[in-house]
Amino acid sequence: MACRITELVLEAHDPELLAGFWCTVLGYVELGREGDAIEIGPPGTGFGGPQPTIVIDRTDEPKKGKLRLHLDVNATDRDQAAELDRLLAAGARPADVGQTGDESWHVLADPEGNEFCLLRRRVPAV
Amino acid sequence: MACRITELVLEAHDPELLAGFWCTVLGYVELGREGDAIEIGPPGTGFGGPQPTIVIDRTDEPKKGKLRLHLDVNATDRDQAAELDRLLAAGARPADVGQTGDESWHVLADPEGNEFCLLRRRVPAV
Repeated sequence: MACRITELVLEAHDPELLAGFWCTVLGYVELGREGDAIEIGPPGTGFGGPQPTIVIDRTDEPKKGKLRLHLDVNATDRDQAAELDRLLAAGARPADVGQTGDESWHVLADPEGNEFCLLRRRVPAV
Repeated sequence: MACRITELVLEAHDPELLAGFWCTVLGYVELGREGDAIEIGPPGTGFGGPQPTIVIDRTDEPKKGKLRLHLDVNATDRDQAAELDRLLAAGARPADVGQTGDESWHVLADPEGNEFCLLRRRVPAV
């Protein structure tokens, strides 16, 4: 391997809002700030660890349509239904991207409408 | 932690082309196919490991503007200049997202124009 995904960059109108949301979703903590950007990541490992950090940077540009690249998440310590409840309570909203409703995953959006999916399988915490 | 990023989903006109490109960039291998979608991921661990897999799914929709969510990558076994050469040879193209040129990172795009950045710091392979 010659290259590795170290971080994801998400452009946001309100980095503070989305940093809080995604920290709650992923159990991430704030790692640092630079200008308007807030970097969040797994506690302990930080940047360069096996899991990507997320840099949430401020933009004035409107979101145009569905995300071309989106995240899928899986619960690590509960079943999908319980995790769905937790995510909705954290500020996620159901999103319609044309799914039939028969899928094994739930399509959600963060507080700025960025779509992500909650999959069914439980995965080990890393 | 109650949730973890397990996969990234990238919509593409040509999943075959992008799967090949991103396998070369990240040292990923094909993990499976479902319909038009191709899943790639780290050899050995597959889905559910610490690093996200990438599901490249087919779409007819055109890409609209810059990606709202994008990837940043770091080299694991060479310096940034050598990695830049490797990525360009693999089919990456320089991309203009309004950067000044004084940044410590290179802005690139995959063969369908999906922007990503090559950062300077070398990180350990996982």
